[in-house]
This record gives sequence, structure tokens and C-alpha cells, in this order.
Amino acid sequence: MVPKDGRPSARLTSRGAETKARIVAEAASLIRERGVAGTSLDAIMAASQTSRSQLYHYFVDKDALISEVIKTQLGRVIAAQEPRLREVSSWDGLQRWCDQLVATTRTTQGIGGCPLGSLVSELADRSDSARLELARSFATWQSYLSTGLAAMRDNGELDPEADVDELALTMMTALQGGLLMAQTTRSARPLELALGMALRHVGGYRDNPTSNP
Amino acid sequence: MVPKDGRPSARLTSRGAETKARIVAEAASLIRERGVAGTSLDAIMAASQTSRSQLYHYFVDKDALISEVIKTQLGRVIAAQEPRLREVSSWDGLQRWCDQLVATTRTTQGIGGCPLGSLVSELADRSDSARLELARSFATWQSYLSTGLAAMRDNGELDPEADVDELALTMMTALQGGLLMAQTTRSARPLELALGMALRHVGGYRDNPTSNP
Repeated sequence: MVPKDGRPSARLTSRGAETKARIVAEAASLIRERGVAGTSLDAIMAASQTSRSQLYHYFVDKDALISEVIKTQLGRVIAAQEPRLREVSSWDGLQRWCDQLVATTRTTQGIGGCPLGSLVSELADRSDSARLELARSFATWQSYLSTGLAAMRDNGELDPEADVDELALTMMTALQGGLLMAQTTRSARPLELALGMALRHVGGYRDNPTSNP
Repeated sequence: MVPKDGRPSARLTSRGAETKARIVAEAASLIRERGVAGTSLDAIMAASQTSRSQLYHYFVDKDALISEVIKTQLGRVIAAQEPRLREVSSWDGLQRWCDQLVATTRTTQGIGGCPLGSLVSELADRSDSARLELARSFATWQSYLSTGLAAMRDNGELDPEADVDELALTMMTALQGGLLMAQTTRSARPLELALGMALRHVGGYRDNPTSNP
């Protein structure tokens, strides 16, 4: 039996790990395209060429699979934002990360929205395990920002009083709202405005406010 | 035949209008609870006690029904924010509107998210008619804000150069991102931070910046 949280057992063979990863990747793609409710286990089995018994060998239930999908989407989000996300440790780095997000959204026209944020409306109120996994994923993502902001605070770029965790959460609200409105309007402008506001907000905590944007 | 956009025909009787409104209300409730993909026409028929032929009498297809659901949710959002939303024509009014949103979210713990915003991830990329209806609905909602901000500009509370439409859109991104993160974390804090940032942003356009919050 796999443990209830859906993690692979210690004895998972490399072939088993590959199969499991394939199921998660296919489930993630189908959910991106059709949503959670629109993605049946049958469709996941067909796309990943696995049987029901294989699926239940790796995941005790749909919740366990969804949890792995959320982790996969977090991994993709972080990977897509590297190396910019790791460079959020100076004012210039923070601006470059924002610029990259806007540039990417100009290319996509907002289609697809945020791979994590777009899961919230379907999952947060219907599965507490999924909601908690989403909250953990956002926290991980934000931790890159708060670590960068803490570096800026420590090197004197930000006011020593700045609450970097709250600033990171505030930036995440701007990013999520910007992406949601970009997806609705098929324009990067809402994200550009949202991140501009967020940068100005963080800029309010700069030790040398005369050089604010 | 009803017109393709799903509007009632001019000859809709008052009983017909009631039936149509009941179908839309039940569809809206089911979609709030289960999402779009999770809500079948059969479920809507059962909840509204209507037959398939009645349903197709009022709506040419699911898209036409969804369009009415979006309009209904917009109406509910506006109604829930009155009279505060209409009072966004002074700095104090703007702050009171934000305070009310945060207070409501403290009560709900963010559950349910935004009745309009939570439809975006499921609809925007899958139905262009639904996406356009969502964009129109957000534009209507934002028009209350831009009208209020224009009044503030005209009475000298905001800089004559302030672009009130872009400020209204920027506030909407903060609201949507704040609600999404509130739904994820079951806390009003993300919304409070997001709207605090938005107020500070608008405050940057006040003609008398020394009295900014």
C-alpha cells in the first residue's frame, strides 16, 4: 500500500516512479485544459496509458493525485521563472522578475492564467487537502520573494522595519489578480498595472525613497 | 425561437420570465457549489424543476445559459456592495468600500471567492462568449470605481492627470488577487494587504499627498 498522502513508497522501482510521474504529468496537462471537474480518472488512464489498478497502486484516491498535480504545477511555475525568481535580491532583480512576467503574459495574452492560481476556484472549497497543498505551494513560491526582500532589507535597500513576508504575500496578490484579469481581457496590461502597483508599494519601503520608480 | 444570445423574446410571458429566472438562479447556485464542468444540464433541470424542452426553449445552448449566469453573478456582486460601491466618490468612500470588502471576507473566511473571478479559470479559455461576458461584467463593476475616481478627480481630491480607468482596473486586480489568496488561505489578511496596497496606490495620485494614509 502507498501511504495515505500519496507519496511513493520507499520501494517504488525506477520504472514505477516513471509510471507515476507520467500519470501526474498527463493529469496536470488534462486539468490545465479541461479543469478538475472536467478531467475524469478514465481520461487520465487513457492519456497515461495506465490501468485503473495501476492508478490506484500509486494514488489512493483522486485527492492524492490532485495533490501531486499541484506540486508538479508549482515545480513548473518556479522553473519557468528561473533564474529571475532567484535574482529577486536587489531592486533591479525585483524589477526584472516583474518585467519577465509581463513579457511572458504579452506572449500568451494571459491564456492559461496562473498554473496554480487557476486551480483555486475549483479546489479550495471542495477539498481541504487540495486547499492546504495550494496554500503550501503559494508559500513556497512566496518564500523566494521574501528571501529576496530580506536580502534587500539586510543590505540596506529596504527599511529595516519592512515585513518581508507580508510584502511577499502582497506581491503575490498583485500577481494573481493581474494574471486573472489578463486571462479575462486577453491583455497583459492588467498584470503590468498590478505589478507596477506592487513595485511602487515595495518602493515605499526603500531606504532611499528619492530614487523610487 | 429565442435569439442566439439567449435574451428573452419580446413575447416572453411573466410566467415564462419567472421560469427562466428560476433556471438561471439554480444554475448560478449549482455552479457556485460545483463549478461549471461539475454542473450538468440534468442537474440544473432537476434543481429548477424544468424539462429539457423548457430549458432549450429559453436557452439555445449551455453557453447562452452561462452568459445569463455571469450577468446574475454580476448583479449579486453589485447588490452585495451597495451602497458602499456607489459611495466611492470621495477618499473616505473609497476606504469604506475597501473596509466593507475586508469585513465581509473576515466573515466568510474567503470561502467562495469572488462570484465573478472564480468563473474565470473555468471559462475564459474554453468559451469566448463566456470570456467576453466576464470581461463586460468586470468592466461594469469597474465603471462604478472609475466614475467615483473621476468624481474625486473633478472635485480636486485626485490629480487631474490621474487615469481613472486604469486606476479602477488596478484596484480590481488587487481585489481579485486578494480574494483568490483569501480563499486559498482561509484568511482575510491577503485581501486586507492587497486593498491596503491599492489604496496607497490611489493615494499617490491625491492632490494633497501629505494627508495620504
